[in-house]
Amino acid sequence: MKPVIAITIGDFNGIGPEVALKAAMHPSIKRICQPLLVGPLSVFQHTQKVLKIRTTISKTSLPILKPQGIPVLDVSDGIWADVQFGKVTTTSGKTAGVAVERAVELCVKKKAQAVVTAPLSKEALQLAGYGFPGQTEMVALLSRSQRVAMMLVSNSMRVGLVTIHTPLREVVAAITKEKIVEKGEIIHESLRKNFNVKSPRIAILALNPHAGEGGRIGDEEQTIIIPAMEDLTSRGIDVEGPFSADAFFGTKRFQKYDAVLAMYHDQGLIPLKMHAMGKAVNFSAGLNIIRTSPDHGTAYDIAGKGKADISSMLKAIELAVRLTKN
Amino acid sequence: MKPVIAITIGDFNGIGPEVALKAAMHPSIKRICQPLLVGPLSVFQHTQKVLKIRTTISKTSLPILKPQGIPVLDVSDGIWADVQFGKVTTTSGKTAGVAVERAVELCVKKKAQAVVTAPLSKEALQLAGYGFPGQTEMVALLSRSQRVAMMLVSNSMRVGLVTIHTPLREVVAAITKEKIVEKGEIIHESLRKNFNVKSPRIAILALNPHAGEGGRIGDEEQTIIIPAMEDLTSRGIDVEGPFSADAFFGTKRFQKYDAVLAMYHDQGLIPLKMHAMGKAVNFSAGLNIIRTSPDHGTAYDIAGKGKADISSMLKAIELAVRLTKN
Repeated sequence: MKPVIAITIGDFNGIGPEVALKAAMHPSIKRICQPLLVGPLSVFQHTQKVLKIRTTISKTSLPILKPQGIPVLDVSDGIWADVQFGKVTTTSGKTAGVAVERAVELCVKKKAQAVVTAPLSKEALQLAGYGFPGQTEMVALLSRSQRVAMMLVSNSMRVGLVTIHTPLREVVAAITKEKIVEKGEIIHESLRKNFNVKSPRIAILALNPHAGEGGRIGDEEQTIIIPAMEDLTSRGIDVEGPFSADAFFGTKRFQKYDAVLAMYHDQGLIPLKMHAMGKAVNFSAGLNIIRTSPDHGTAYDIAGKGKADISSMLKAIELAVRLTKN
Repeated sequence: MKPVIAITIGDFNGIGPEVALKAAMHPSIKRICQPLLVGPLSVFQHTQKVLKIRTTISKTSLPILKPQGIPVLDVSDGIWADVQFGKVTTTSGKTAGVAVERAVELCVKKKAQAVVTAPLSKEALQLAGYGFPGQTEMVALLSRSQRVAMMLVSNSMRVGLVTIHTPLREVVAAITKEKIVEKGEIIHESLRKNFNVKSPRIAILALNPHAGEGGRIGDEEQTIIIPAMEDLTSRGIDVEGPFSADAFFGTKRFQKYDAVLAMYHDQGLIPLKMHAMGKAVNFSAGLNIIRTSPDHGTAYDIAGKGKADISSMLKAIELAVRLTKN
């Protein structure tokens, strides 16, 4: 039996429906799993019409029996799906949110084996009344997961983040010993459980330039990061660092580790995207369910034009399928 | 007449003397300039002995007449040059500092056309009583330059920094509209004057993840960076941004600009080093003199072993020579 992969619609004013639909009908995807689109049938039909996509999609209920074309779990009840490409609207936020709720529910109830979320607009999500900073936090709560760490995964680099969508002004205050230990533990466990790495080696990045130069450029390496590393080591987790981030990536030292823990968004995502733009997948480590997503956003500027690159979405589905087997 | 390039010894407990000497005797360097080593003759002789480097070096005074081998401006007066590889010592800091002073003086008096500084230890420099955060600030003051911007230059990427060796905790407070305007102006002028770019285009990076997502992840883009860009535009300087740093580098958008202005150290140096590790040169834009340096540090761990990579030092000298002609 192929695993059922629930693919959410994302924000329908962006490229969400396009990448979800195009990926679901891609031969490489149909071969490895049973894709299940989650979103209003009417919007996927609209996407087909606007982008002249010839395929059969049809409303389904679960379990999926003898699928005709691509099954859609229609979540249009009470949603007025008024597509306005490039705009932040309450209805697009509401639809995106409901699709995530339903997809996670399918996984929790074991009717699907993984969720792959298309990109949504956090602004639209909040307009619609969802109080989450992003999908990762939303999926964590809906799946009743105690904790989560955002990881970006490519063929040869895995990056975890201590802080994610935190303003730079608030980053240093948000980095605590406890938080580094928590993220380090989640990543360690995920490497073992999800990625079959028997003895994971994790590199920890420094916060300050030149890793603080022995305290002359900031002291958080001494006061926070090294104590957290000692704590992790005492729990049997193999960590090294804290490494000066520019030299670490410049010398390709990341290749010696199974994952890198970065302190903040750009520190981890600049090297990841330089290394593997469009080939990286966002994976929520530590959840009770499997959830991946592509590494790009809603791309409002090219919505409805048929120009979206689906390669990261394909990678996200492929990784989700692989993780269902580990 | 070939330009005289004053090459400082750097920290003699690190790889400074090794890269300075090996670069000065390199055929590609001797062909394009008259290298002049600045540091204690005794230390360079010690380096020769330890690393078994066969070349002729000899004490010189200026102007350099009929050089026998590589001329050394001996700055050993009153310095007890006790080499202890891998250690931070007051004498190495003192020697490094005096060498920078003398080299800059040569340039100010037009006896040399450029300074290339080997890496020194900021800790040793401060132990020796020099109150500078780094060589860039020291060279600026000694050359009586009103202002300076640190730029990292490779064949296909030029990165300027608003803040340099600032602890991350202090970065946001250190970024002001005035400072961005100042650095933008220096880089613009330097691109025209030093790099012969007629109509420079400068990309400005955002401070926050996703460029602040319209104020939802920090507001410095709106309150500081965009006003600074408007000011620069009103001065006829072509700037674009603020760009989300990860996507900017991931999509190789940097290739469309003559320079990129990053807000802080790792944001600019992670991509620069990933793109051109060992091939980038540190250039101090805006000075009254020409000064470059390699993109690496003292490398205490490999000092005295003959393992230092001189490629960035060669690039630094080559760039300095090129800049003397513009």
